[in-house]
Amino acid sequence: MAVKTLENLFMEGLKDIYYAEKKLVSTLPKMVKKASSPELKELIEQHLEETKGHVERVEQIFESLDKRATSKKCAALEGILSEAEEVSSEIEDEDTLDAAIIASSQAVEHYEIARYGTLCAWANQLGLNDAESLLQSTLEEEEAADQKLSRLAESSINQSAAA
Amino acid sequence: MAVKTLENLFMEGLKDIYYAEKKLVSTLPKMVKKASSPELKELIEQHLEETKGHVERVEQIFESLDKRATSKKCAALEGILSEAEEVSSEIEDEDTLDAAIIASSQAVEHYEIARYGTLCAWANQLGLNDAESLLQSTLEEEEAADQKLSRLAESSINQSAAA
Repeated sequence: MAVKTLENLFMEGLKDIYYAEKKLVSTLPKMVKKASSPELKELIEQHLEETKGHVERVEQIFESLDKRATSKKCAALEGILSEAEEVSSEIEDEDTLDAAIIASSQAVEHYEIARYGTLCAWANQLGLNDAESLLQSTLEEEEAADQKLSRLAESSINQSAAA
Repeated sequence: MAVKTLENLFMEGLKDIYYAEKKLVSTLPKMVKKASSPELKELIEQHLEETKGHVERVEQIFESLDKRATSKKCAALEGILSEAEEVSSEIEDEDTLDAAIIASSQAVEHYEIARYGTLCAWANQLGLNDAESLLQSTLEEEEAADQKLSRLAESSINQSAAA
């Protein structure tokens, strides 16, 4: 489609993140299986539940704008996940694999933090207050997930991987 | 290669970010050309100069570890840039294009923030103090660049795109 206005751009961004969130709902269970640390498994499982909520929030935004929820393939997330897959397939040690899973998860979180930050700013500019509030809630959960991953890496996983 | 230890993983991460930084040195000038706002052009040009410094810092780290600087194709950054290219090719209005360029640049910044954050934590765990300090300096410049982009978007670019 031809994108002419900030509103068009906002809608394209929404389709992109809708794709990304749905893709993560199907990808996170695979990461849980690959992880060895019980704390890491639990953290990813918790974030999977949050991610299902993020999908619903994006659907609520589409609905509030009287648009059908549609997704658009997100090449960025596909690239991040394909890199994650490539690195993890080369790892032979389970503690090292846990460290790599955290790194990949944080790349995903930061992708989402960037996109939700942008979508919040655009929603604000467009006066879409309900959408902005929903996007802000998800942004805060992505930031919190990123911080939890950092804490887990620095408190135990990296040490085990280096041992 | 088989990755067995955190040190192996650190080296793989270094190759990944070395590829990304060099790719950005060749990509940022194209983004300057596409941008219309003089402030945005200047901000990207400044960050291009910083990015050349980031390439040198990664080379210094390889050297300090007695390793040849080698890069490894970074599927994540390729995905982010291919998505940026796809979105910008559909935009017909220059203010809207500026808003999209900021969004793409922030996705790139956040990718780098994630990777440098991880590399800093791994360098710390591995006792690579000089490497950690160089990585930390770059991390701070990426975070500052992201904040400058947010400020520019929120102070003027988004408003122009919505007008």
